[in-house]
Amino acid sequence: MSDARPAAAAEGRRSPYPEPGSTTRAAAVATGWTPTAYAALPRPLLDELTAAGLDPERLHAQVLDALTEDLPAPEGSPAGTWGVDATSAATLDPAQRGTADLAAREPGTVAGLAVAELVLRTVLGDDVEVHQRVPDGTRVAAGDVVLRASGPVPGLLTAERTALNYASHLSGVATTTARWVEAVAGTGARVLDTRKTLPGWRALQKYAVRCGGGVNHRLGLSDMVMVKDNHVVAAGGVVPAYEAVRAAWPDLRVEVEVTDLDQLRALLEVGCDHVLLDNMDTATMVEAVRVAAGRATLEASGGLTLDRAREVAATGVDFLSVGALTHSVAVLDLGLDLQETPLGGPA
Amino acid sequence: MSDARPAAAAEGRRSPYPEPGSTTRAAAVATGWTPTAYAALPRPLLDELTAAGLDPERLHAQVLDALTEDLPAPEGSPAGTWGVDATSAATLDPAQRGTADLAAREPGTVAGLAVAELVLRTVLGDDVEVHQRVPDGTRVAAGDVVLRASGPVPGLLTAERTALNYASHLSGVATTTARWVEAVAGTGARVLDTRKTLPGWRALQKYAVRCGGGVNHRLGLSDMVMVKDNHVVAAGGVVPAYEAVRAAWPDLRVEVEVTDLDQLRALLEVGCDHVLLDNMDTATMVEAVRVAAGRATLEASGGLTLDRAREVAATGVDFLSVGALTHSVAVLDLGLDLQETPLGGPA
Repeated sequence: MSDARPAAAAEGRRSPYPEPGSTTRAAAVATGWTPTAYAALPRPLLDELTAAGLDPERLHAQVLDALTEDLPAPEGSPAGTWGVDATSAATLDPAQRGTADLAAREPGTVAGLAVAELVLRTVLGDDVEVHQRVPDGTRVAAGDVVLRASGPVPGLLTAERTALNYASHLSGVATTTARWVEAVAGTGARVLDTRKTLPGWRALQKYAVRCGGGVNHRLGLSDMVMVKDNHVVAAGGVVPAYEAVRAAWPDLRVEVEVTDLDQLRALLEVGCDHVLLDNMDTATMVEAVRVAAGRATLEASGGLTLDRAREVAATGVDFLSVGALTHSVAVLDLGLDLQETPLGGPA
Repeated sequence: MSDARPAAAAEGRRSPYPEPGSTTRAAAVATGWTPTAYAALPRPLLDELTAAGLDPERLHAQVLDALTEDLPAPEGSPAGTWGVDATSAATLDPAQRGTADLAAREPGTVAGLAVAELVLRTVLGDDVEVHQRVPDGTRVAAGDVVLRASGPVPGLLTAERTALNYASHLSGVATTTARWVEAVAGTGARVLDTRKTLPGWRALQKYAVRCGGGVNHRLGLSDMVMVKDNHVVAAGGVVPAYEAVRAAWPDLRVEVEVTDLDQLRALLEVGCDHVLLDNMDTATMVEAVRVAAGRATLEASGGLTLDRAREVAATGVDFLSVGALTHSVAVLDLGLDLQETPLGGPA
């Protein structure tokens, strides 16, 4: 077992970095930025987020929260103020304007660029112009500019990290999903996500899965029934469990998890038409597809890897569900390149 | 470019999964769970979170939000109600009690188990007992039980996924950090995080980095100055930039990024004692350490990989900063094993 701060303690060295929770004199200076209120955001952007299946008001609250992590207001500040970006305040001319290119540093599939724009607009309000933005779901090459925005340089740099943190994570989800979709292309199988999402990020991550060509499994515990091992044990078997949920929720979609073919056969006999095949080897899945003979939608789940995706898809299952799409996300590397507009004249 | 829902659209198939944003009759049934209010949470747990550098009230709000993602309340419900866990409601006896073991499925370093407990207590209040919980920062083996809790089975299963989503992500951060710390052990170099954190998760992820033996870089834009390329360009060079921030913030720690040894020499001459070496090859870093000769703390940054960690640490730099600790996290695989208490008698 190790203490949470072992290195510094063991070596008795003073860290040149701030202590967590420390306050500084700089933090006691509020910046001039006022967060843009929801009502002042451009309607087309909000409509676009809504059309994407997101809740723009909740997302705006999350963006405000994320920016506040970077710019915590000094104690005693009025609500809705931010702390100072100390570096920018000391080095940048507040009047300096420039153009920021958000660019891909590697190939992939982008998602979350509307969220990046929401970050820019939450910091800069009407003082930022977004000239171009490629649609989410676009496959991009290294070097491609995916969003171009003009505005005051200090504000662009203050928003930079938060905008990139959103877009690079969500593009990472979309890129990995697209890789799985490509791996199973032509087999008829489709790629599903799970509920193994980052707390607070479910709607966003599931949106990014769709951008990568994946299909969303249920969104939560209320919109579909999913009978797992513990429910089966409690109900006394897969069939009693299926019958209990069918009776309780006649209008809900019902999926039941099985670990062997006997359970599958029993469920098919009572009319269950949606079955999860848990952690089966390929030969057993082939047999499951033969047994089901089109009477049930079959989902392969558990221990799937990208290397094995095509082999599993080729068994004839309808879906592969992949927790790693959302629980173990490698970012798509995106960066921000800034061109300053010469002072005294437009670029 | 691809549409965000290409597979279903292209193939004209109806998905057996709910449409995003769809409502169902099941969603119109509120569950009996009432979220536990902050004031009703056990004080020792809140104190422990505070001592860990976290804000327990903010964390509780985030946990409530995460649980609401899984259990969205039907429209028109009173505030503070949750939707129903449809599967558990239909298959489980509400009186059934049991013991849930949160166990490691692979070796690693755990973090966030107090947050997992917070999830359990937010769902179950006083009706859950946590018998054991290993301290965050503990190295565990596959199969180790890291948290054991008893309570009503339906509540344990409702809380399960959210608790696991927190603990497996944060343990993933700690585990990767510990791997980097181990890779540089004995060199004197230490491992730093960055601001490339998941929006909303900065304090949690930075806490998990500490659990893995890493050191936190600055927490945001206000608590330290970090002069980067765009600030250098705007100020007209590394020295003018350094002097500007030194004058503006005499009490703040200041670090300046350099890309070559000439910049390093110029900064050392004006007394700058903290320099980031950006994207340098190993030979140049060796030379930078020689040039600095102990006059400045040196941080290696950019393009570092675990394979190269020891070689970089051996140059004599003081810190390696690693964005991937928080921006590209693979979970530590944790699972929940449930033992039901025989009805009619204590276990």
